[in-house]
Amino acid sequence: MTRISTEAPIATLINVFTVQPDQQRALADLLAQATEEVMQHLPGFISANIHTSTDGTKVTNYAQWRSAEDFHAMLGNPVAREHMQRAAELAERYEPHLYTVESVHQR
Amino acid sequence: MTRISTEAPIATLINVFTVQPDQQRALADLLAQATEEVMQHLPGFISANIHTSTDGTKVTNYAQWRSAEDFHAMLGNPVAREHMQRAAELAERYEPHLYTVESVHQR
Repeated sequence: MTRISTEAPIATLINVFTVQPDQQRALADLLAQATEEVMQHLPGFISANIHTSTDGTKVTNYAQWRSAEDFHAMLGNPVAREHMQRAAELAERYEPHLYTVESVHQR
Repeated sequence: MTRISTEAPIATLINVFTVQPDQQRALADLLAQATEEVMQHLPGFISANIHTSTDGTKVTNYAQWRSAEDFHAMLGNPVAREHMQRAAELAERYEPHLYTVESVHQR
């Protein structure tokens, strides 16, 4: 289970992949596999949460890293890059951005 | 604090707003205010989490609703629509999608 809070000084990655609906399942599975095999073992990884849109057109990874530096170090890792390249090939485009959590609202 | 889990049968809304950097703060504040004043009190609202990208170009709301039906009922609420219209005016574009959580990975 992943927790979203304004109190943890972490870097949040939200990466939205746009896909053809017939590629959505393959991309979600590839991202889960890449996370288990590679990302999860890299310094600063906290969590990844793979989401599929009900309209079939998006796969979004909501991930948490200890810091932006850890995230950028991952981008330079050759094994991680290979997995990201395979993910990119299944998508029409992808838009990764790092975020901070501004506010959390509960019922 | 919001929890992301594959076990809760909820609807996740991820809404990515693209903004001019000088509008990012105003939009994040408006979304927080709209959530507190309106969304939070509507049937089926579970949580909203307002994020700002470190590059200044995005504001992303990661929100949870009890069901897609509750989310769609909110879209038809006149007061909610007024707030969403004001948010839309601060953004260049916005891309809301409903999702299910496929997998959660922790270190």
